[in-house]
Amino acid sequence: MSKIKKILVANRGEISLRIMRTAREMGIATVAVYSEADRLSPHVLFADEAVCLGPPASSQSYLLGDKIIEVCKELGVDAIHPGYGFLSENAEFAKKVKAAGLIFIGPSPEAIEVMGSKLAAKQAVAKYNIPLVPGTEEAISDIPIAKARAAEIGYPILIKASAGGGGKGMRIVENEGEFEEQMQRAVSEAQSSFGDSAVFIEKYITSPRHIEIQVLGDQQGEIVYLFERECSIQRRHQKVIEEAPSAVVSPDMRKAMGEAAVGVAKACDYYGAGTVEFIVDEKLDFYFLEMNTRLQVEHPVTEMITGKDLVREQILIAEGKPLSFAQEDLKIHGHALEVRVYAEDPRNNFLPDIGKLETYQRPQGAGIRVDDGFEEGMNIPIYYDPMIAKLITHAENRDAAIGKMVRAIEDYKIVGIQTTLDFCKFAITHEAFVSGNFDTKFVENYFTPDVLDEDFSESEMELLSVLAVEFFSKNNSAGNLKTEVTSQNSSAWKNRLQ
Amino acid sequence: MSKIKKILVANRGEISLRIMRTAREMGIATVAVYSEADRLSPHVLFADEAVCLGPPASSQSYLLGDKIIEVCKELGVDAIHPGYGFLSENAEFAKKVKAAGLIFIGPSPEAIEVMGSKLAAKQAVAKYNIPLVPGTEEAISDIPIAKARAAEIGYPILIKASAGGGGKGMRIVENEGEFEEQMQRAVSEAQSSFGDSAVFIEKYITSPRHIEIQVLGDQQGEIVYLFERECSIQRRHQKVIEEAPSAVVSPDMRKAMGEAAVGVAKACDYYGAGTVEFIVDEKLDFYFLEMNTRLQVEHPVTEMITGKDLVREQILIAEGKPLSFAQEDLKIHGHALEVRVYAEDPRNNFLPDIGKLETYQRPQGAGIRVDDGFEEGMNIPIYYDPMIAKLITHAENRDAAIGKMVRAIEDYKIVGIQTTLDFCKFAITHEAFVSGNFDTKFVENYFTPDVLDEDFSESEMELLSVLAVEFFSKNNSAGNLKTEVTSQNSSAWKNRLQ
Repeated sequence: MSKIKKILVANRGEISLRIMRTAREMGIATVAVYSEADRLSPHVLFADEAVCLGPPASSQSYLLGDKIIEVCKELGVDAIHPGYGFLSENAEFAKKVKAAGLIFIGPSPEAIEVMGSKLAAKQAVAKYNIPLVPGTEEAISDIPIAKARAAEIGYPILIKASAGGGGKGMRIVENEGEFEEQMQRAVSEAQSSFGDSAVFIEKYITSPRHIEIQVLGDQQGEIVYLFERECSIQRRHQKVIEEAPSAVVSPDMRKAMGEAAVGVAKACDYYGAGTVEFIVDEKLDFYFLEMNTRLQVEHPVTEMITGKDLVREQILIAEGKPLSFAQEDLKIHGHALEVRVYAEDPRNNFLPDIGKLETYQRPQGAGIRVDDGFEEGMNIPIYYDPMIAKLITHAENRDAAIGKMVRAIEDYKIVGIQTTLDFCKFAITHEAFVSGNFDTKFVENYFTPDVLDEDFSESEMELLSVLAVEFFSKNNSAGNLKTEVTSQNSSAWKNRLQ
Repeated sequence: MSKIKKILVANRGEISLRIMRTAREMGIATVAVYSEADRLSPHVLFADEAVCLGPPASSQSYLLGDKIIEVCKELGVDAIHPGYGFLSENAEFAKKVKAAGLIFIGPSPEAIEVMGSKLAAKQAVAKYNIPLVPGTEEAISDIPIAKARAAEIGYPILIKASAGGGGKGMRIVENEGEFEEQMQRAVSEAQSSFGDSAVFIEKYITSPRHIEIQVLGDQQGEIVYLFERECSIQRRHQKVIEEAPSAVVSPDMRKAMGEAAVGVAKACDYYGAGTVEFIVDEKLDFYFLEMNTRLQVEHPVTEMITGKDLVREQILIAEGKPLSFAQEDLKIHGHALEVRVYAEDPRNNFLPDIGKLETYQRPQGAGIRVDDGFEEGMNIPIYYDPMIAKLITHAENRDAAIGKMVRAIEDYKIVGIQTTLDFCKFAITHEAFVSGNFDTKFVENYFTPDVLDEDFSESEMELLSVLAVEFFSKNNSAGNLKTEVTSQNSSAWKNRLQ
């Protein structure tokens, strides 16, 4: 066990700041690294020391593992936290950190390696009885054999070319009657496209949900799960809304998924914080997809409902301390939601909209957390992910958390760039989301840009303002009433003026 | 049961804003009232509608109960939340609100009345077996009888003039040997000061703690307790730091105090949110002091550890809904601290320091909540309580909550006025506070203005900066290191430069 005294965070933006805050709260000194584009970023200003790595491009700054290790030696750093992205799942980097006598705040390089390969991961978990999407283990081209396997798996099934990719040679088969014809087409398409007629068959999940389990393991081999995060609301495979707990996971299912996730972690002798991702079908059967061997973007919702600071736990584990709690000590408190606020224009195909944050005021109040890496007056740089902030709400139950999120989105004042805030409000208030009845196709099924402007048009708002002023010139007995009509109070005004 | 659709908050500043946020999250329209001094306050700008009540003086604005009721009728308001202070414990106002057909979000006028009188409260709780500070029920002047009672109560005891006040005729008696002499002096002092020689005798608590219990009751008669708040750190009887749970309350003591508090509430058929205050002695025996029949300033620490939104509960109770949870559903999650940040100069006898908030940046991050009613650029008005904000931290345990509070205080940037932030940091990091071994005399025992400037003098900071620049002109191989020395990183710098 070695007490960590100084941490370098090999990352930028919100996650760098978030990690350093916990470090400082624990009395640990902090070192930031930055590219020339981030010279004045809050993560740089917050740190006790900060080192410029190079030009804006990640390949010339945040990805320079060797240079980062060098900085650690010069500044007497004893541990590196990689955050997410960049070097966080780079086994080679983790090895070099260790070889340099530093602590890597994350799992062992071996665990990163195993879980970084789909095949290796599948082999590793084999003896732990983890449910995988049912399918053929090996490529197949014989139709009767394939049909028999399809019958075992159950329809609908998916046929995909062994050598394929990009949807080529992929066929969904709804029932046995269609099988032979579709199989023949898939085989010939595979042959003509890839020169290889072999195909795999697997269960096709019509309405998939993405639900993941947070795990924490210590270096003594104890592993616990911190329940699930529902991450089905995605746009182009990018999560946009996350919540904990999931609206559809029962206590029994939670336990089963949690134990499966612990099995996956055990399979690679995991320690630190990690996430086991599952795909969940309409019948709420779940199947292991992959393990992310790092802190997840959406980790805050888990922190909210468990009361645990995951970065603090990561640091304690990296110091060699055993977990200070057991599985039965963990309880779910209330409900948490996270929306990712991007500098993107939802009315214009989510094109990144960089520029200056002319006004930047965070929503305030109980149960609201904003994890960000910007301040008013700053520019959003073009070089990195255009995420401005993660807006998190925590309340007693799901309805209250949604109510709080709507209020928080309305109170978030960002002027100068287009953001996805109103897209987030659309999603969070959509009937499918509110009812909990949704899957990963939510955005493609329900979102078109025009849904953002349904409430009140600008001309309606102007009319309301004029009427409001008139109303008070006639009804001024109550004193000086505020007459400004805003998007927040427009409904109230409309009701009053009717 | 009547669903509340529009709430008027008869208050100002942070508490008005805090109440309206919850109302909006529940889909309830909000009406603010304000004095001319608060025209541009956040609580006014946040509300759906806002009405000016009059000039700055509270007596001409926030205390105008009749005018407020009139506003409610004109704007179709159906419920009034009084916040704390102002009209919140005014039974007459509560009666008038009811008489006007409006809902008062608080207890019945009768409960306010009973608990507003020390004598009536004592009589009401008599049959509930609530511990009171042991003492004579009636005034006494006969020395042998008094001595016998003192022996029953146990030394040290306090003798105080029946007609007295302001400490006149008050005597602390350490042991029986001193009794007769002290009693004679007290009696004669009482006679000469008040023309009445009668005195009361009660137990003198040498090292008192102030611990209070939050209760919630519905209109169906169900009452639960939401555990304790430790409020012993006070300055001139004004609380400055509050926490939940208390560092000295065991589960058994918590249960006993909680049940006593529920007894007090039952004694006045209490409904809504209320607080039962106890004085606790060195042996951790507790005695009922009084009940506050309103939302308390320090309610956030209870919200943090229970996950309940007390304003939400108040509103649901006022609508006539039964409590949605039972005593056994309530659990303590982690530890919460609150410090009150005042516009006062702790180096100058805590003189109010009004003026403009030139810079006003709140600390950010997980587990930090700021309840305030100001924005950068605003003036702190002279007319009201000079509290700027309540800074609340919530973490897994007490140590982590303290670490987070220190970090939050350091990250709170207020320029333009003097604040009590560094006084709060002094208190929260003091050995007596950290160990949990303190009483209501903490500030008088430990605080003198010079303790605020012990760490680094301004000249030391300047020297550190010069050395830091030199250091990096010699050691610049690591790139562009930040050379600014701030109060936050000064210790780190000092270590490096030695």
